[in-house]
Amino acid sequence: MSTQFRADGSLRHLITLESLPRPLIERLLERAQGLVRPLGERPPVSRALAGCTVANLFTEPSTRTRVSFELAAKRLGADVVNLEVQLSSRVKGESMLDTVYTLQSLHVDALVIRDAETGVPATVAANVAPHVSVLSAGEAHVAHPTQGLLDALTVRQYKPRFDRLSIAIVGDIRHSRVARSAFHVFGTLGVADLRIVAPPVLMPEPTEFSGCTRHTSLESGLDGVDVVMMLRIQKERMAQIDLPDGDRYYASYGLTPERLALARPDAIVMHPQPMNRGIEIASEVADGPRSVIRDQVRNGVAVRMAVLNEVLAWRAGA
Amino acid sequence: MSTQFRADGSLRHLITLESLPRPLIERLLERAQGLVRPLGERPPVSRALAGCTVANLFTEPSTRTRVSFELAAKRLGADVVNLEVQLSSRVKGESMLDTVYTLQSLHVDALVIRDAETGVPATVAANVAPHVSVLSAGEAHVAHPTQGLLDALTVRQYKPRFDRLSIAIVGDIRHSRVARSAFHVFGTLGVADLRIVAPPVLMPEPTEFSGCTRHTSLESGLDGVDVVMMLRIQKERMAQIDLPDGDRYYASYGLTPERLALARPDAIVMHPQPMNRGIEIASEVADGPRSVIRDQVRNGVAVRMAVLNEVLAWRAGA
Amino acid sequence: MSTQFRADGSLRHLITLESLPRPLIERLLERAQGLVRPLGERPPVSRALAGCTVANLFTEPSTRTRVSFELAAKRLGADVVNLEVQLSSRVKGESMLDTVYTLQSLHVDALVIRDAETGVPATVAANVAPHVSVLSAGEAHVAHPTQGLLDALTVRQYKPRFDRLSIAIVGDIRHSRVARSAFHVFGTLGVADLRIVAPPVLMPEPTEFSGCTRHTSLESGLDGVDVVMMLRIQKERMAQIDLPDGDRYYASYGLTPERLALARPDAIVMHPQPMNRGIEIASEVADGPRSVIRDQVRNGVAVRMAVLNEVLAWRAGA
Repeated sequence: MSTQFRADGSLRHLITLESLPRPLIERLLERAQGLVRPLGERPPVSRALAGCTVANLFTEPSTRTRVSFELAAKRLGADVVNLEVQLSSRVKGESMLDTVYTLQSLHVDALVIRDAETGVPATVAANVAPHVSVLSAGEAHVAHPTQGLLDALTVRQYKPRFDRLSIAIVGDIRHSRVARSAFHVFGTLGVADLRIVAPPVLMPEPTEFSGCTRHTSLESGLDGVDVVMMLRIQKERMAQIDLPDGDRYYASYGLTPERLALARPDAIVMHPQPMNRGIEIASEVADGPRSVIRDQVRNGVAVRMAVLNEVLAWRAGA
Repeated sequence: MSTQFRADGSLRHLITLESLPRPLIERLLERAQGLVRPLGERPPVSRALAGCTVANLFTEPSTRTRVSFELAAKRLGADVVNLEVQLSSRVKGESMLDTVYTLQSLHVDALVIRDAETGVPATVAANVAPHVSVLSAGEAHVAHPTQGLLDALTVRQYKPRFDRLSIAIVGDIRHSRVARSAFHVFGTLGVADLRIVAPPVLMPEPTEFSGCTRHTSLESGLDGVDVVMMLRIQKERMAQIDLPDGDRYYASYGLTPERLALARPDAIVMHPQPMNRGIEIASEVADGPRSVIRDQVRNGVAVRMAVLNEVLAWRAGA
Repeated sequence: MSTQFRADGSLRHLITLESLPRPLIERLLERAQGLVRPLGERPPVSRALAGCTVANLFTEPSTRTRVSFELAAKRLGADVVNLEVQLSSRVKGESMLDTVYTLQSLHVDALVIRDAETGVPATVAANVAPHVSVLSAGEAHVAHPTQGLLDALTVRQYKPRFDRLSIAIVGDIRHSRVARSAFHVFGTLGVADLRIVAPPVLMPEPTEFSGCTRHTSLESGLDGVDVVMMLRIQKERMAQIDLPDGDRYYASYGLTPERLALARPDAIVMHPQPMNRGIEIASEVADGPRSVIRDQVRNGVAVRMAVLNEVLAWRAGA
């Protein structure tokens, strides 16, 4: 999506990782890595974005992702305002854009948007004034680009040679923005073997996830992989797939210690959260020695700082 | 309302623009003008109110006006807390004042209050300790003083000679705090010709809006004016006036390009937002070359900074 | 609860005042006193906790206690994020801890928790990483430690000799976390005569409040006391105790001027708020010359600053 860039080639919006150039992704990961601190140490704090304003437009009152963006912006010295809004065009028609125009007239520099409807971030990006950046914090089933970057950063910390990796993404691939952003970023970074593992009805269309191998058996999907990325399963979905309760889903697709033993001995386990423990993942695995789930959260705020710095760098220098 | 002033003559509260002296209004507009920046430039930021605390008491979770006040306060260095409260006395009796007393005991310096019931800001102002200022962010149908000031600032930027202007306020005048604050400020600034345009049942009582001409025909109301101020129509109201749907209201009172052609060729179009596009205003007009609606939003944060500076100046100097 | 302390003896969590050493309580009160300013003066502001992050996890959108903690943290220079969460384990199972782990991975230094279920703050404290502090902002009927400290600070300002005091706590003792934290702190500070006054069914179990005298008559309970601490009565409770409406409760247990006359002439009146005026307390008393209810609020933010400083001092020095 060429519209994510300014005329001078710098990154303006972050709406999807699809076709983002590999050097840019690597630079973002490198800079995020420089902002990571071990648990218990103080996070880096600066005034790099002092005088900038970031608005969080979320459809729900408070979520982990909102707090992660909020802290990323505050630790760079930006002012942050939180709004609960319904941006979906089917709900409010043109009033979506009126809300956005209002925020840009209030000199908001970056809009962080989470919306359940496809296309909202791109529509907003296509309409805002040139000085405003749009960052997707989750768009329908389509994209969750900062999640993709934090997932890549987490893998990189444990398995830096992407061209030698086997990664399995497991769960409701069909409806998952996390899976799609992971597919984009791992594809660009040259992951050797990317697998998607799901019950047949939760598989994406054949035209999607090209180059990935498809497994309806969790056992075959996990065989020898370096990285296991679990996804959250919505309870509503389980009914649709004739696995009407958590127990039955867990029996077929839950990540148990036994199944994890099929992966490589040093395989890591990831999950975007919130987790359904005992449904898609056993608590022993979620809290076990191979879990890097909390690393993902820590990396998330570093990635969001790096992205805010990247898109607002011109402003900070002004 | 003399109680808006301190014994030394300085402005303490801003609850209504009625009978506010012209020199004070002009000074506030002048200072706000100095805080306006073009879209895309950085807004002015200072530490003038560092150590001060502003509390936003709004009855709804998030609104444009709340964010405008929040950013105005933060860009002056104040701490801001947001509370969702029902202050209306009929709902909670004396507990309204207990909430206010709590905030003043927490060393809050300014209370920004939006409430649907008449008299709440004045009641609070009459009861708070001498160091606390009350700023109305919208009181029932009665007053919205910072909206009045931003409307005046917007007109002033395009049409600085108020004594030569014709201004038409169009829509549900009867129930509009925006119209009443505009009436007050434009009267004080000496606007030559102020018109109110509405269906008969949405006209205010004959004792109100003295000196304004009244038009039930939009066409006659717009004839030759310099400024068109549109108001939002509530859908509930349309049923009451035998114009039960948006289409029929639009047919009689919607601002179309054709009707706008009745105004002067350089007339500007204003709206306090949120807009009902296709009901009170055509999208072509709202987004057209004569619309200054986004200027109003930008001016709003500047006006609120000027007002906060004015009422808290004694504190900032302490 | 020894787990409130670090290995070096410093205070890490504040979950209960029970068995907190008297020198620590006195130091906290002394430091809080140094942060108290008269109404109308500016509160002390510092950058002592700059770079620290405080998360408010409350089950309701906005409350006095949340704002008090938020301002305490901001006036020390900390970043603050507000989350509305249901932490109760019966609601969400292990997801409670996942929310907490997420916040600690985001480098949150202190979690301020209000929850209606017993044991939540202790469970969280037992599971967070060593660098995270947990501060209870109200736990079921069990404890409200910062309320206890602010109550002690308020008494100390008027009646510094605890060993000579008679204090009556009046109302729904059985279900009150305020009463329990007051019992703990006044016990430790050596209050000579601590009385609990309640209708029989609102009395706590005989094993609780040991050493307190029990009064089911308000008149005998108030006789000659120096301090009257009123509690809020929930309307649901009144039905349970055959006092089905506020008028009848007031007739037996409301603090009227006549009843207050039974206390010492210089007795002070306290209430944790929000008040049911005309039910547990007469407005003349709540707003009268012996009421120190607003002092309690002002002291609350000072106490919370002192507590945040105490538990995060190691971090601030880092």
